[in-house]
Amino acid sequence: MSVAAQRRPYPGLRATMPARVAMVGAGQLARMTHQAAVSLGLELRVLAVSESDPAVDAGADYLLGSFEDIADVRALANGCDVLTFDHEGVPTEHLLTLEDEGLNLAPGDAAKRLAQDKLHARRVISELGFPTPAWTHARNLGEVKAFANRHGWPIVAKAPRGGYDGRGVWMAGDVNEAGDILESCPDGLLLEPCVAIEKELAVMVARSTTGQRACYPVVETVQRDAMCREIIAPAPVASETAAKAVAIASEIATVTGTTGMLAVEFFLTPEGLLVNELALRPHNSGHFTIEGCVTSQFEQHLRAILGMPLGLPSLIAPSVATFNVIGQADGVDPRTRLARVLEVPGAHVHLYGKLPAPGRKLGHVTVCGQDPGPVREAARLAAATLEGRPS
Amino acid sequence: MSVAAQRRPYPGLRATMPARVAMVGAGQLARMTHQAAVSLGLELRVLAVSESDPAVDAGADYLLGSFEDIADVRALANGCDVLTFDHEGVPTEHLLTLEDEGLNLAPGDAAKRLAQDKLHARRVISELGFPTPAWTHARNLGEVKAFANRHGWPIVAKAPRGGYDGRGVWMAGDVNEAGDILESCPDGLLLEPCVAIEKELAVMVARSTTGQRACYPVVETVQRDAMCREIIAPAPVASETAAKAVAIASEIATVTGTTGMLAVEFFLTPEGLLVNELALRPHNSGHFTIEGCVTSQFEQHLRAILGMPLGLPSLIAPSVATFNVIGQADGVDPRTRLARVLEVPGAHVHLYGKLPAPGRKLGHVTVCGQDPGPVREAARLAAATLEGRPS
Repeated sequence: MSVAAQRRPYPGLRATMPARVAMVGAGQLARMTHQAAVSLGLELRVLAVSESDPAVDAGADYLLGSFEDIADVRALANGCDVLTFDHEGVPTEHLLTLEDEGLNLAPGDAAKRLAQDKLHARRVISELGFPTPAWTHARNLGEVKAFANRHGWPIVAKAPRGGYDGRGVWMAGDVNEAGDILESCPDGLLLEPCVAIEKELAVMVARSTTGQRACYPVVETVQRDAMCREIIAPAPVASETAAKAVAIASEIATVTGTTGMLAVEFFLTPEGLLVNELALRPHNSGHFTIEGCVTSQFEQHLRAILGMPLGLPSLIAPSVATFNVIGQADGVDPRTRLARVLEVPGAHVHLYGKLPAPGRKLGHVTVCGQDPGPVREAARLAAATLEGRPS
Repeated sequence: MSVAAQRRPYPGLRATMPARVAMVGAGQLARMTHQAAVSLGLELRVLAVSESDPAVDAGADYLLGSFEDIADVRALANGCDVLTFDHEGVPTEHLLTLEDEGLNLAPGDAAKRLAQDKLHARRVISELGFPTPAWTHARNLGEVKAFANRHGWPIVAKAPRGGYDGRGVWMAGDVNEAGDILESCPDGLLLEPCVAIEKELAVMVARSTTGQRACYPVVETVQRDAMCREIIAPAPVASETAAKAVAIASEIATVTGTTGMLAVEFFLTPEGLLVNELALRPHNSGHFTIEGCVTSQFEQHLRAILGMPLGLPSLIAPSVATFNVIGQADGVDPRTRLARVLEVPGAHVHLYGKLPAPGRKLGHVTVCGQDPGPVREAARLAAATLEGRPS
């Protein structure tokens, strides 16, 4: 165990301070949660890997430690009202142990497993009767071939655990490629056919420990190089499609008994909406809510896990667009381009204080306005400026 | 000198980090400036009196020291690109010295004096031809009597320096009362007649080191017990009045050569607009900009003092209201009432992490919407809930 002293002793306010939140992880999600906690007068303590983690850089109280070490997670949670997460890394068995010890986990162990294990999530979602792509759990090449025989090549193969931003997802064009992928995944693969995707959509929904829910408007997420580049709110889809996505997400929040923010990602296909993946925490698809909605997903997550009344999730403008800022090959820190990006009218800049590296999410930019065209163009221009790409 | 070690060493990012801001003071203005700095990826270092100061509580890097000790202020500014202020406490002679030493002050010494010395400000504003209440500098009882003979009793007497939230402002009903006040102010008094005030108004204007300006819409400030309780944006006044107030504020920003945020407070009287006071920093009258405008006054202050392009100051909704949350006699911390206030739809809660004390500003609440009636009522209800007052 390697837990450093927290930066300052907690001030003597325990009697009058109702809520202290522990968060495993100190990345950008924890950083933005800290900003929301400051406004509400809450205390957030994060479990950080390094003092240069984004949430530590923003001034959150922190412990240095490992999310894989139960003693570190326990030390983090000590004296806090609730334990929550900015990633899926804590081993399932530790969550179970901590919950048995009486810790308040948000989400709880059972729900958290849905975010940690894509195969488990797919099984639960399917069994509950929600539409998903066809799928199977393939543990050997025979099962891969059988699935491909039914659905045709290529097939999509996903590692059940640990993937993000396109990592852990492969396209297998034939049985040889599938064999190579299978070798790297001893627990087997989640297989899907290549679905004809018209759009990718996402719905953020908050569910409180009291059961109260609040659904944000459905957004379109635009991927490039297997990473989310743009979020368009509201998604340009038929109102029945939007209503159906919101209803599915809301129902998933309830039947899975999650607490805090839940992101439900969808494929919109010629056959209708299919549930793709879940994330049980604030999510990249929800960054538009900081300036774009009455209540940000970060404040909403805090309200939900503390059992406080949820805030209004409605948009504050007819159109909101968010672009992620991705590290480029030149390795330049986007903070050096701050003066230039601030020339873009209406651009809300969020930089995460991370060291630049190619492909790393270093920030995002949000623009709110009347019409999707200029709103999206301004957000795109701002992100491209921070990335130093010719626009 | 008593400068504690900063909380953590600055990460090795100097080459790629263009901007590091030092702020004298660590109150709620510095706290909210820190939140804005986090979004922009800037570093803010504050000079704090105590580790329980609001900006330290929010996680800003800090030095412990005294704003009256030039060595502490110098140590704070060391290695920073610009030195700015969340209050008026630094002695004028220190500002002059630091500027002579080559420090970038924002605002500079000459402008800063306008905020520190009401008499100096009144003299400058009058000489520049802006309308003000009639006034004089009374150093003895004879001068007080002469002023009262011209304008009648009662008269308003102000201490030239150090007053805020009604402190340092008195109403003198006769020569005896005036004599008592004069005794407590060895430098004399700024005297004004009792002006017939229809409304109090304020305009926030940002002026960059490049000379660029951005004016926020004029607001009405509603006082009770000599403290600002409510800010109504936009102010319910004739459009010519609003335009004139904005024009005056904008011109004052230019002719005084200030940098950063400037708050110009006005009396609206039967004779028209009169300039009352100036504040050369983010200001309580501008808290509505956090959720109510495209660019908050705190981000705008950072942009302005760093010479970066200013953001749009426009309202994001037709009506915005902010109520301050004031410490009550019961001494209860409003943080214990968080769950209750979050029931108020659309209430944006800001709690400053301060120990409660009667009359102390402990937070504020902002509501945005379509119509001033329900917007103001929701903000009032939210503030009353945090104050534990029957509503």
